[in-house]
Amino acid sequence: MKKLNIKNNETAIYGVGGLGEIGKNTYGVQFQDEIILIDAGIKFPEDDQLGIDYVIPDYQYLIDNKDKIKALVITHGHEDHIGGVPFLLKVLNVPIYAGPLALALIKNKLEEHGLLKQAELHEINDKSVLKFKKTSVSFFRTTHSIPDTMGVAVHTPDGVIVETGDYKFDLTPVTNQPPDLQAMAKLGEEGVLCLMADSTNAEKPVWTKSEKWVGKSVRHIFDEVKGRIIFATFASNLSRIKTAIDTALAHDRKIAVFGRSMEAAIVNGRKLGYLDVPDSAFVDAQELKHLPADKIMILCTGSQGEPMAALARIANGTHRQISIQPGDTVVFSSNPIPGNTLSVNRVINELEEDGATVIHGKINNIHTSGHGGQEEEKLMLRLMKPKFFVPIHGEYRMLKIHTKLAQECGVPADHCFILKNGEVLALTKDSAHIAGYFNAGDVYIDGNGVGNIGDKVLQDRQLLSEEGLVVVVATINLKNQEIQSGPDLLSRGFVYMRESGELLDEGRKLVFRTIRRAMKNKNADEKSISKAIVNDLSNFLYEKTQRSPLILPMLIMND
Amino acid sequence: MKKLNIKNNETAIYGVGGLGEIGKNTYGVQFQDEIILIDAGIKFPEDDQLGIDYVIPDYQYLIDNKDKIKALVITHGHEDHIGGVPFLLKVLNVPIYAGPLALALIKNKLEEHGLLKQAELHEINDKSVLKFKKTSVSFFRTTHSIPDTMGVAVHTPDGVIVETGDYKFDLTPVTNQPPDLQAMAKLGEEGVLCLMADSTNAEKPVWTKSEKWVGKSVRHIFDEVKGRIIFATFASNLSRIKTAIDTALAHDRKIAVFGRSMEAAIVNGRKLGYLDVPDSAFVDAQELKHLPADKIMILCTGSQGEPMAALARIANGTHRQISIQPGDTVVFSSNPIPGNTLSVNRVINELEEDGATVIHGKINNIHTSGHGGQEEEKLMLRLMKPKFFVPIHGEYRMLKIHTKLAQECGVPADHCFILKNGEVLALTKDSAHIAGYFNAGDVYIDGNGVGNIGDKVLQDRQLLSEEGLVVVVATINLKNQEIQSGPDLLSRGFVYMRESGELLDEGRKLVFRTIRRAMKNKNADEKSISKAIVNDLSNFLYEKTQRSPLILPMLIMND
Repeated sequence: MKKLNIKNNETAIYGVGGLGEIGKNTYGVQFQDEIILIDAGIKFPEDDQLGIDYVIPDYQYLIDNKDKIKALVITHGHEDHIGGVPFLLKVLNVPIYAGPLALALIKNKLEEHGLLKQAELHEINDKSVLKFKKTSVSFFRTTHSIPDTMGVAVHTPDGVIVETGDYKFDLTPVTNQPPDLQAMAKLGEEGVLCLMADSTNAEKPVWTKSEKWVGKSVRHIFDEVKGRIIFATFASNLSRIKTAIDTALAHDRKIAVFGRSMEAAIVNGRKLGYLDVPDSAFVDAQELKHLPADKIMILCTGSQGEPMAALARIANGTHRQISIQPGDTVVFSSNPIPGNTLSVNRVINELEEDGATVIHGKINNIHTSGHGGQEEEKLMLRLMKPKFFVPIHGEYRMLKIHTKLAQECGVPADHCFILKNGEVLALTKDSAHIAGYFNAGDVYIDGNGVGNIGDKVLQDRQLLSEEGLVVVVATINLKNQEIQSGPDLLSRGFVYMRESGELLDEGRKLVFRTIRRAMKNKNADEKSISKAIVNDLSNFLYEKTQRSPLILPMLIMND
Repeated sequence: MKKLNIKNNETAIYGVGGLGEIGKNTYGVQFQDEIILIDAGIKFPEDDQLGIDYVIPDYQYLIDNKDKIKALVITHGHEDHIGGVPFLLKVLNVPIYAGPLALALIKNKLEEHGLLKQAELHEINDKSVLKFKKTSVSFFRTTHSIPDTMGVAVHTPDGVIVETGDYKFDLTPVTNQPPDLQAMAKLGEEGVLCLMADSTNAEKPVWTKSEKWVGKSVRHIFDEVKGRIIFATFASNLSRIKTAIDTALAHDRKIAVFGRSMEAAIVNGRKLGYLDVPDSAFVDAQELKHLPADKIMILCTGSQGEPMAALARIANGTHRQISIQPGDTVVFSSNPIPGNTLSVNRVINELEEDGATVIHGKINNIHTSGHGGQEEEKLMLRLMKPKFFVPIHGEYRMLKIHTKLAQECGVPADHCFILKNGEVLALTKDSAHIAGYFNAGDVYIDGNGVGNIGDKVLQDRQLLSEEGLVVVVATINLKNQEIQSGPDLLSRGFVYMRESGELLDEGRKLVFRTIRRAMKNKNADEKSISKAIVNDLSNFLYEKTQRSPLILPMLIMND
């Protein structure tokens, strides 16, 4: 690790999160004593991070420099860009600037965390300009799968740093907010020092289809289906929700909404004017029963097969209000995120067993990405004509391909930098170099706590999920060297108690002997006895079963 | 036909050619007494226009208004944009403004026609501005399959009229001339009154692949092939020629060029700096014989199966210098133009029978279009944000789809106009209406003559090609009512003389009787006798053969 050294004549840019990963986007642009933060996102945990709700960046560098931070500007209202706001605000106060929709979503979050009153919130739009002493920030409208998406331009004395946010070039968006090509071209014309650009689809040699194209396919489905339509998509994809609702209205179907996040999305979308739907278009579960099947669209969460979401519960018959009836058509209007394929397939099977027709997948043209493919990434590069290039928002292989595209579009290879989280690039008008690093690891969040779960806990949860658990309970009087009760062995996820009475009985005897022996040591304490139990019992169980359950001694020291 | 009436406060735009067709692009923008002409192209004849070399527009409207014409500006150097220049200059003199490559190609043409000395030629580039009294013209760089391609902006007191020329958005062109997005966005920012845009690929819902993508596929072929490579493409596709030459050089192959137009293209391309190739890279047919097969690339015309092009002659063994040898690989780096599929297939079969391996078609990724697909057409629309829209350069169905795209990109339906050749749209700052029509039919060119072939001639050629010809020769003295010799019947393309002696003999007797009878009429003349011959003989031949050859009486009136 090279010690961080940003010179006074340099503009520093870095990712606190978002580099080498999809998620927790949090970027900084720093000139002298002014830091502009762009986004504060969370990451959803990976499969082996059990019981973790989400992951945020290590904010220590920002805490250490909190007096410099002038603004947190938000590109759009998705979790991987705003989910970290409450956690960030808990450790440092910073004025937040966001578009109407993102701001509404942030307010909901801050309210939940009891932080709304203390937060300094400013609503902006793509024409806003924020002026600070040495830097200023302007915006440009882009398109994504949610309205009010903006790119950010930070104007420093060294030049303009552009951060695209998440974008595609949807030239026929359903929201009537086309990308502002003129604003982007103008930035390019005036000169961009460094472009930091979304790399999500850098591996896809395509021009991502417009949301309007999905609309055509959805319309075809509505034209043909005579029964109820159950339409599942992300609550965060407000463009898709608008597509579904507009089509339902045009086909004279009433809309029933299920799933808490979907309900919230629609409330927000209507309040802010993105969804122009009269109250009369919506029905509740009770009214639903009295409508003919061809007058109903059920809009719900669960397109990723999430077990607790509305759709999964409808599919397995545990939803309180809705169950599948013959003639139902279920539309999955999203692609499974890698890792979710199995759960999605399970829900599809259940739905079809219940008698529903399921429409899903790319072949039905009912989904398109919110991120631009290679052609759009090249277009952004040609619009911005940056001197230096830093790919962001992507795993390493995506960032790497993105730098190749940049080179094909005229950025010299030695002007392209693939950064890691915490790695700081220092720029002058005509140079760039790595100025050092700060710590920017993962922080795990369980419930509303921050960073109270370490890697050890995660390893345990991993072990538990694979090998199970054996709890050892005993009451010990160390002074008398007496085992007052127990030891008792309790197993979960390791062996069925009933079938393995003998094994556990043997284990119990073994632990009894271990405790007796361990107590005799003159330095004996709870820790040393526990350690001896774990050691002996795990050896014994592994020998008998070739498995290594988590062994958890619960000693009650009665003295 | 509505009489043409352009008011003094209106800017008129029209196609003299290019609307409802692919070819003879010739557009006019007219304000009061100033006309700016954009391009002067030819069209290649269709299959049923036999013996026609090409088709140009009827220039009468331009001749009638020749004092108003201030400039002919050229978007690029393809035949359908510059092929008409010599024919236009023969009927009216106009200063010509073109980029370096188009200008070089125009000079070649004018030299052939003996018009070079009298022509007023100006070399321009995309930064040039032409100023006239009331209007001015600026340009913006676009990309196509030939370098130096530009769009045109005509600035009138009513607003800016933009004509895109042929374009795609090739963001990684091989010529190092990316499209000037900034210039286009600036026009859109400042306000475009009417956009006239290329509609060639309006039916294709794609983003057209970059020429660089073809380069990758060509490189794979060169990596694997050990024998000679024969590379066939359009001589007009200088980008593709550059791709082939660059790849050959990188693979240490010498280049032999066959086909007159290909040789000319390479001479021009090298002279103007688009092809950076040393003399030593080229070899002639003689040197070719002494090189190993894996050191050779033969670059030639004939990718459309044209019977007289180098490749067809190589394939059928009639080329003087080159024949197919085992191990040869022939690359067709173009898609067959509709109508050429049969000839292309014939040449492919001949080549494979000769022992060559043939690589062709879309599946091999060795061709991409020079015209943008729907996504690029939408991008142009969003860049220009025009108030009115007129699709050009396309058949009716392409123009129609293009107006739908325009509407999806925010142009109101009643601001989109599908014009015919000769139809005049009159614009003010905020209105548009059809101001009338002028004649703008096809003029056929056979050899170097202009317009000397009528529809009747074409019908005859059509008949000849399908049914053949019977010539009737007789010498007649009308005064004496005497048939001095003949009649003799000669058939071509109808029946073999030898096999049908009897038929023709019978016909001869019939004609003899017809002439005798026709001569008796007191108003008899050459015409009436000929008519009688055609009438009787065609009835007779149709009855006998169910065919209707062209009957051509050649009467020698000997009196």
